[in-house]
Amino acid sequence: MLVVMQAHATEEQVRAVCERIEALGYKAHPIPGSTRTAIGITGNTGSIDIGTLESMPGVVECIPVSKPYKLVSRDAKEDATVVRIPARAPASPGEERRPDKNPHDARTAAAKDAVLIGGGNVAIIAGPCAIESLEQALAIAERVRAAGARLFRGGAYKPRTSPYSFQGLGEPALKILAEVRERYGLGIVTEAVDNESLDLVEEYADVIQIGARNMQNFSLLKRAGRSRKPVLLKRGMSATLDEFLMAAEYILAEGNYNVILCERGVRTFSDFTRNTLDLSVIPAVQRRSHLPILVDPSHGTGRRHKVLPLSRAAVAAGADGLLVEVHHEPDRALSDGMQSILPDEFQQLMREVRQIAAVLNRTVN
Amino acid sequence: MLVVMQAHATEEQVRAVCERIEALGYKAHPIPGSTRTAIGITGNTGSIDIGTLESMPGVVECIPVSKPYKLVSRDAKEDATVVRIPARAPASPGEERRPDKNPHDARTAAAKDAVLIGGGNVAIIAGPCAIESLEQALAIAERVRAAGARLFRGGAYKPRTSPYSFQGLGEPALKILAEVRERYGLGIVTEAVDNESLDLVEEYADVIQIGARNMQNFSLLKRAGRSRKPVLLKRGMSATLDEFLMAAEYILAEGNYNVILCERGVRTFSDFTRNTLDLSVIPAVQRRSHLPILVDPSHGTGRRHKVLPLSRAAVAAGADGLLVEVHHEPDRALSDGMQSILPDEFQQLMREVRQIAAVLNRTVN
Amino acid sequence: MLVVMQAHATEEQVRAVCERIEALGYKAHPIPGSTRTAIGITGNTGSIDIGTLESMPGVVECIPVSKPYKLVSRDAKEDATVVRIPARAPASPGEERRPDKNPHDARTAAAKDAVLIGGGNVAIIAGPCAIESLEQALAIAERVRAAGARLFRGGAYKPRTSPYSFQGLGEPALKILAEVRERYGLGIVTEAVDNESLDLVEEYADVIQIGARNMQNFSLLKRAGRSRKPVLLKRGMSATLDEFLMAAEYILAEGNYNVILCERGVRTFSDFTRNTLDLSVIPAVQRRSHLPILVDPSHGTGRRHKVLPLSRAAVAAGADGLLVEVHHEPDRALSDGMQSILPDEFQQLMREVRQIAAVLNRTVN
Amino acid sequence: MLVVMQAHATEEQVRAVCERIEALGYKAHPIPGSTRTAIGITGNTGSIDIGTLESMPGVVECIPVSKPYKLVSRDAKEDATVVRIPARAPASPGEERRPDKNPHDARTAAAKDAVLIGGGNVAIIAGPCAIESLEQALAIAERVRAAGARLFRGGAYKPRTSPYSFQGLGEPALKILAEVRERYGLGIVTEAVDNESLDLVEEYADVIQIGARNMQNFSLLKRAGRSRKPVLLKRGMSATLDEFLMAAEYILAEGNYNVILCERGVRTFSDFTRNTLDLSVIPAVQRRSHLPILVDPSHGTGRRHKVLPLSRAAVAAGADGLLVEVHHEPDRALSDGMQSILPDEFQQLMREVRQIAAVLNRTVN
Repeated sequence: MLVVMQAHATEEQVRAVCERIEALGYKAHPIPGSTRTAIGITGNTGSIDIGTLESMPGVVECIPVSKPYKLVSRDAKEDATVVRIPARAPASPGEERRPDKNPHDARTAAAKDAVLIGGGNVAIIAGPCAIESLEQALAIAERVRAAGARLFRGGAYKPRTSPYSFQGLGEPALKILAEVRERYGLGIVTEAVDNESLDLVEEYADVIQIGARNMQNFSLLKRAGRSRKPVLLKRGMSATLDEFLMAAEYILAEGNYNVILCERGVRTFSDFTRNTLDLSVIPAVQRRSHLPILVDPSHGTGRRHKVLPLSRAAVAAGADGLLVEVHHEPDRALSDGMQSILPDEFQQLMREVRQIAAVLNRTVN
Repeated sequence: MLVVMQAHATEEQVRAVCERIEALGYKAHPIPGSTRTAIGITGNTGSIDIGTLESMPGVVECIPVSKPYKLVSRDAKEDATVVRIPARAPASPGEERRPDKNPHDARTAAAKDAVLIGGGNVAIIAGPCAIESLEQALAIAERVRAAGARLFRGGAYKPRTSPYSFQGLGEPALKILAEVRERYGLGIVTEAVDNESLDLVEEYADVIQIGARNMQNFSLLKRAGRSRKPVLLKRGMSATLDEFLMAAEYILAEGNYNVILCERGVRTFSDFTRNTLDLSVIPAVQRRSHLPILVDPSHGTGRRHKVLPLSRAAVAAGADGLLVEVHHEPDRALSDGMQSILPDEFQQLMREVRQIAAVLNRTVN
Repeated sequence: MLVVMQAHATEEQVRAVCERIEALGYKAHPIPGSTRTAIGITGNTGSIDIGTLESMPGVVECIPVSKPYKLVSRDAKEDATVVRIPARAPASPGEERRPDKNPHDARTAAAKDAVLIGGGNVAIIAGPCAIESLEQALAIAERVRAAGARLFRGGAYKPRTSPYSFQGLGEPALKILAEVRERYGLGIVTEAVDNESLDLVEEYADVIQIGARNMQNFSLLKRAGRSRKPVLLKRGMSATLDEFLMAAEYILAEGNYNVILCERGVRTFSDFTRNTLDLSVIPAVQRRSHLPILVDPSHGTGRRHKVLPLSRAAVAAGADGLLVEVHHEPDRALSDGMQSILPDEFQQLMREVRQIAAVLNRTVN
Repeated sequence: MLVVMQAHATEEQVRAVCERIEALGYKAHPIPGSTRTAIGITGNTGSIDIGTLESMPGVVECIPVSKPYKLVSRDAKEDATVVRIPARAPASPGEERRPDKNPHDARTAAAKDAVLIGGGNVAIIAGPCAIESLEQALAIAERVRAAGARLFRGGAYKPRTSPYSFQGLGEPALKILAEVRERYGLGIVTEAVDNESLDLVEEYADVIQIGARNMQNFSLLKRAGRSRKPVLLKRGMSATLDEFLMAAEYILAEGNYNVILCERGVRTFSDFTRNTLDLSVIPAVQRRSHLPILVDPSHGTGRRHKVLPLSRAAVAAGADGLLVEVHHEPDRALSDGMQSILPDEFQQLMREVRQIAAVLNRTVN
């Protein structure tokens, strides 16, 4: 159920409706939009008596939502969600600056120190599959930063098919990531694999990643929903679109609205790639949901030489960004070397992706 | 790496080899077989100097294992694993007793109060999708017991696609399940969804179920591996056979060798069933692994009228048992009513499955 | 659209309705059932004025059919279709005879020289993947006949992925098959791959097989529909159930109602079998259609050691028969040796499948 | 087996090698490249005595080809195949002309009246799913021509899942297509569904399309291989990459080297699109084969609003062109209206696709 407020509804009116909803034993989720606020109601097992709500001041109407998801829906929020991640703006003379599209925008100054994802802002997250050492992390961070990336990825906790494979360095890797942020001003994205690691990731990182294997680890989703940090949620290997959006709904339902979706390939009969990258999901998500959607061409293809063409394709299809594995010595990587691109290839990727984003009137920041 | 001991190797010799392995910084897993013991070595990231091990008393040879899984492999243990679950034997005159195939077997007496799974023993686990109330649980337990089932299933924690769907009663449901065991002597199988619920399930139930969505929740698998209770591990919706066996390997690698695998359908393009039940996995598992494998025809098909034919098919293909949803009022079930069969249908299922098991010289117990 | 006739409607009344339908510019398909006849109407692009038909003598009602298929539907014909294939009855003393379930049935005598498929009759079709020589064909035919098979398969035209693979002997193989029938009285099933080969197959064989790759070769389906010989139609590698039934509908719509469906595995991500055998399709087909459905466990699994368990499973699930590859020297077979079973294994298959069919009150003939 | 000739080998030397190959009972396929010629040998069932060939004048070496495909392989022909389709160049002042990249190229003049596909040339084929009438065809042709398309598609023979659906107008549609070419100078692409229709399509059209359902209709592939017209071969719904290339190999093996591949989506569990468009196949094909590869975003997604984003993505991924359904009145289309875009949307598509092709240094012609 959604309660749609009038465009000129006051904050008091919104608060009063929320209080009434809570008094009825449900949970209220005020969702501010550019013109008006909607209030999502969750926690109801049966039908709600909408009469009392519809007669309250400032309320336009109550809309029963037939789709299984509510808060992630475009019905709940017409405007695209723009997630802001703290990251230092590129400053050195040789580096491109994000053009200020609207210099009078009050948010511009702050935005210089934040990367935006969604709503026309394309963000590139780059780095190694796993953090292996401080030297490795700094070497790669320097290079991706030089190429224009403002967000850095690197696994501290690695979900591995085999119990005998390298499982990540754990907290020491998180400290390395914090050092990368300190030195290069890059925003940090890293994966949590259970509640314990999420506590630590939340402390050190800027974005909490939930991996494909945990997309329906509902206990972990709820915990991420109680965090204040943005969450990057990857699509499960065989998740339908509804399941994907419902997994995001778990996070929003707990109060965390800063969710970034990420397509990373699905499992099919097709055997020449590690997974089948399903780029059609981009326009499909954008029709149904206000959340931004990234693409991971590294896991999505599993082959270095396919990362560049599929990165271009993802941005051309309208993705709000990319999550790319870059390694300066891929042949020596402890995991996923086969699908990591070299720093030089990443530079080319940034160049081409900027040009393609421009065709869609979008900006890579 | 596997160290194969001589048939007449003493316990001291086995212990000595294990100590040497641990001294080298690895983990030793002695795996007793019917004729001889093998010792699995895990924890090695590189190659092991096998010279010192091969020269120890009682050692036949050291075998490098090329397959990604070790402890679950037939190489490690030739004999089928038989999992024993405490459950009272059927006693009332009208009920069939499991025929004692070998009356001189010393384990026979104990076996009467245990259900065996694997090695020619076919076990049927039946009950509702979710525990809804004590009345519901008892009503169904009475009926499935009367039909010959000795193991009872029922969800206390339900992983649901939607955060707004019924998520299970939690601990109160576990108390109801304990009551079912008390009254009817049925062994209890129920799902844990995170470390917290696993602590409780371990306390109340006889078998800890790990669901398909958590098959690669490695944190949960490790926790289950540290439990003393048998673990029923369901195949993930798009898990390859290797991934399925590797998930089991996570549990064995922590020291819990009582793992029961369960096929529950995989996700394909095919749209007339909820999932595509992949019965070929039965002979495939049996070739590669010593672990027993069950089939869940309820989730595997998602349709009531397909449960009976596919139950027969599973046992005919050589499954070590079934996990079946039974509800006395399926139309009023809080979840999965569409795929639950009625007690009368379950009675027919037991009858037909017994006859088919006999064709394979197997016994339903 | 279906016109349902009264139970006591005369042949003249049925004919009159058909003539009216044809006069309206449509095609009439009288479908006799055990109690009454239904008349399918095809060829209508829009809606039909049912008034004139419903008022005709002998007509009970006109039913608009919402499902995309009409003639293959259970709505059109309640009773299971039983396809009869000429084949000599087993005569030597050591061989089992099909028990005459109803000795007063006028059709019994003829049935002794025909194999029935469908309606409780389970038929086993066995033989090599491809006909390689007269010696090979006779050697295998003798053995499968001795094990109780009454229908023989063997490819004369082989659709092969590579243009450089053995493509079958063509007409000489058809002559060999005719010789097999002459000597052993086995009914012959062989594949046609285009209109040209269908002309020849129709001349030599008893059943025309349409392979999975040609399931939607509509030109070939129409040609098969104009034949008088029964057609065995294999499910395409990624065919949905509706597409499978619609492919059969193409054949029936041309006037050939003797269609036998065959599940042979579908393509999924699962990589330990050549295809994923989808046994749930058996009860699904039986609910929707009156046509018999076989299972091909050889292509369905692609591995010799899985053929036996999956053959048992197929019959246990209710399949109306099996299509099995048998070769006396599989390692020397020109195609598909890996999935062919040995004559001894086939004997065991026949024995076990008879026992399982009996559990379902069905007879292997 | 490939025989690689010296760069300066004479035509006589090439011919002599071919004659020797034919004398040995095989088939020789001379494949001219930019620097040297290779000669493919097909028809050999066993190994070939390469000694006699390697010692012939002009021969560099003989390479056994391990991949199942030979003639379609990059090993056989390093340079990308460029298929030329006769089509009048855009002439009206408002229309863009393909820039002449190399004015001294002798082929430039002719190229103005030919559309090139492959080797940096991106071609757009547009038109309705099915030809419904002359008026419809001309209306759409005029609009797609105005937007810059030089190739026109439109079905005369439609393979339809249901025998009761519109199956195309047949030869009258081919005559309409010929009229479209006459009036607008557009090259004509249309589908053949069997040998009979192929005879007619070959007569009227410029490119013979083989549809996804017929990708392994080997009889039809061989017939297409004996045609002089280029063949557009669509990937089957569940074809692996090897199967796709082997299907093309059937055509080349008969002597027709002008094959254009086309990805049109594969069948997966994913249910929000009609098929899952597998864009990773583009770099995968380009690595293995010299043949050009197009993308059909209309069938690949099945939804109008996804055609534009996925068209951009396809070209960004490096596709050699697009096959797009355009209809001026999609709601009234006899087939596939849901996935046809409007002429205005097509105009936008052309504009955006040109810009993206430029990022890859490619030209839309």
